[in-house]
Amino acid sequence: MSLSTFCEPIFPAIEADLQRQISRLDDLQTHLFHEMLTYHMGWTGEGAGLDAQGKRIRPLLLLLTNSSCGSDWRPALPAASAVELVHNFSLVHDDIEDDSEKRRGRITIWKKWGLPIGINSGDALFALSNLAILELSSTFPPDTVIKAASVLHATCLDLTRGQYLDMSYENRIDVSIKEYWPMIAGKTASLLASCTAIGSLLGGADEPTQESYRSFGHYLGLAFQVQDDYLGIWGDTELTGKSIESDLLTGKKSLPILYGLERNSDFAHRYIQGPIQPEEVSALSEELTKEGARLFTQENTDRMIDLALQALHIANPSGEAGEALYELLHKLVSRRA
Amino acid sequence: MSLSTFCEPIFPAIEADLQRQISRLDDLQTHLFHEMLTYHMGWTGEGAGLDAQGKRIRPLLLLLTNSSCGSDWRPALPAASAVELVHNFSLVHDDIEDDSEKRRGRITIWKKWGLPIGINSGDALFALSNLAILELSSTFPPDTVIKAASVLHATCLDLTRGQYLDMSYENRIDVSIKEYWPMIAGKTASLLASCTAIGSLLGGADEPTQESYRSFGHYLGLAFQVQDDYLGIWGDTELTGKSIESDLLTGKKSLPILYGLERNSDFAHRYIQGPIQPEEVSALSEELTKEGARLFTQENTDRMIDLALQALHIANPSGEAGEALYELLHKLVSRRA
Repeated sequence: MSLSTFCEPIFPAIEADLQRQISRLDDLQTHLFHEMLTYHMGWTGEGAGLDAQGKRIRPLLLLLTNSSCGSDWRPALPAASAVELVHNFSLVHDDIEDDSEKRRGRITIWKKWGLPIGINSGDALFALSNLAILELSSTFPPDTVIKAASVLHATCLDLTRGQYLDMSYENRIDVSIKEYWPMIAGKTASLLASCTAIGSLLGGADEPTQESYRSFGHYLGLAFQVQDDYLGIWGDTELTGKSIESDLLTGKKSLPILYGLERNSDFAHRYIQGPIQPEEVSALSEELTKEGARLFTQENTDRMIDLALQALHIANPSGEAGEALYELLHKLVSRRA
Repeated sequence: MSLSTFCEPIFPAIEADLQRQISRLDDLQTHLFHEMLTYHMGWTGEGAGLDAQGKRIRPLLLLLTNSSCGSDWRPALPAASAVELVHNFSLVHDDIEDDSEKRRGRITIWKKWGLPIGINSGDALFALSNLAILELSSTFPPDTVIKAASVLHATCLDLTRGQYLDMSYENRIDVSIKEYWPMIAGKTASLLASCTAIGSLLGGADEPTQESYRSFGHYLGLAFQVQDDYLGIWGDTELTGKSIESDLLTGKKSLPILYGLERNSDFAHRYIQGPIQPEEVSALSEELTKEGARLFTQENTDRMIDLALQALHIANPSGEAGEALYELLHKLVSRRA
């Protein structure tokens, strides 16, 4: 059974629950505030539609994990909404912090309605996420709910840690590869790990199995980010569907760039001299390949995928949802250009 | 017994617990990030000290309420930290949204380290607050913890509602007094109401009593804000200890100003013509007094104080902590210039 067939009823259920969560703000006085959030979520306004909504990978991962423990995924929906709301709160704030004018092809909320509205909207999504996770208490034992909320909140703190590290690396040229891992662990892997941890907790898995699922989500997140870093230099625009602005231009401390800097050869000598110009991108990408950065990045993606696979084998997911989890990992690999 | 004597052991306990909560971020990689937060909290950096820490009214209110139910306040400390962390998260973000360069006489975190750091630091305080409230589960039944967390998270959403309303009123001259109340209910009263609601919940009060305490906090918050609005026009710098920038200059839609606008007389005619100049402040304050805004604002403070008192009588707080709650309310009244 294909991922898409098994997931057919899941996607609309996620979307409906997210809309219900956000409708907490839909009253007479804050109607427009509510509309700003539904715009960001991709449901309303110019350019609304599937592309504007993003892939909802995190809630899907949580529900598939939950289902692969032999559980009915429907009662876990508020947790799925919670992780997606956390993801979106961080996107809204990241877009301000990175001065990004576009998100999923549309004007960002802060660019459309101003900086104060942008910050406040992110805060609202954060608060909505906190409320969503507590909704589990209508179906799950209170101890389980507290554990799920603890995992989610610890992840939110991890997100700010990762974001801080990312910012602190921006103006440094001596960032080591060793420093790369805790940054992406916080920025990317922690939330994916909390999806699989919470999904399996709510699925009734025992603690060692929860830990295997958590580990699967963690390595899936690392693999996903390293792959993203790969595509940020050698990505094929048509294949990824993104209009790529090379990471060489944005100054991002991605893994291939850190590799090049550590080699301290031709790439590094040029890089530390100051901003790269668009016409240099092609030659510098080739130089990075020549110095071994491409292979190194591919090897690291593969290593993370292997570790994710090992953890998933140990977790031993069952049924169609289990197959879908393997397929999700496979889809990640095939993103390679 | 005076408020200060009874509170003597409470204040350092609050401070110590807050430091413990924030120390979650104190590791090798995020040491400087941790320092940014301790700077904001008033513990480190230039100008650190009691004045820089703020009054910690919210955690005090929570612990006094808790104690006035006949309970030992110490196990409730993580909840006290949680409300203060929420307050500080909102201050950090508000300062960015309002373009404020100073807070408690010191440079604001975003002005000192930049906008991205400012947003991210507020998010970290928010996440730390979420983690703090769940710490209650080491001493309180899980159902109680979930209820306390629900109250706190609902308040965080209220804060964003109030902030949204405040922003949406900024460029409107037709804001009515009716629209004022939900704004300050969200911005100010909700968090004080959650202090007394959570304090009494953890103190083992029955539901009707919790509701009376919640109501007390709510009206205390409204009284506090209306009083603040009063001082924003007629405040005496020496008495309040603040260097007052009249609300007439900042364009804030405070209660006296909304009253003046609704009167649609001399004050309103001048106000709608555009920014007030510093040399006009004195005459316009007098005009507002003449039109009845001063009396109206005082009456509303008194009305809110009465409602707070009524609710507190019904809650029937006991012991020294109960006396301290009455005293806290009394202190509020005496802020009047």
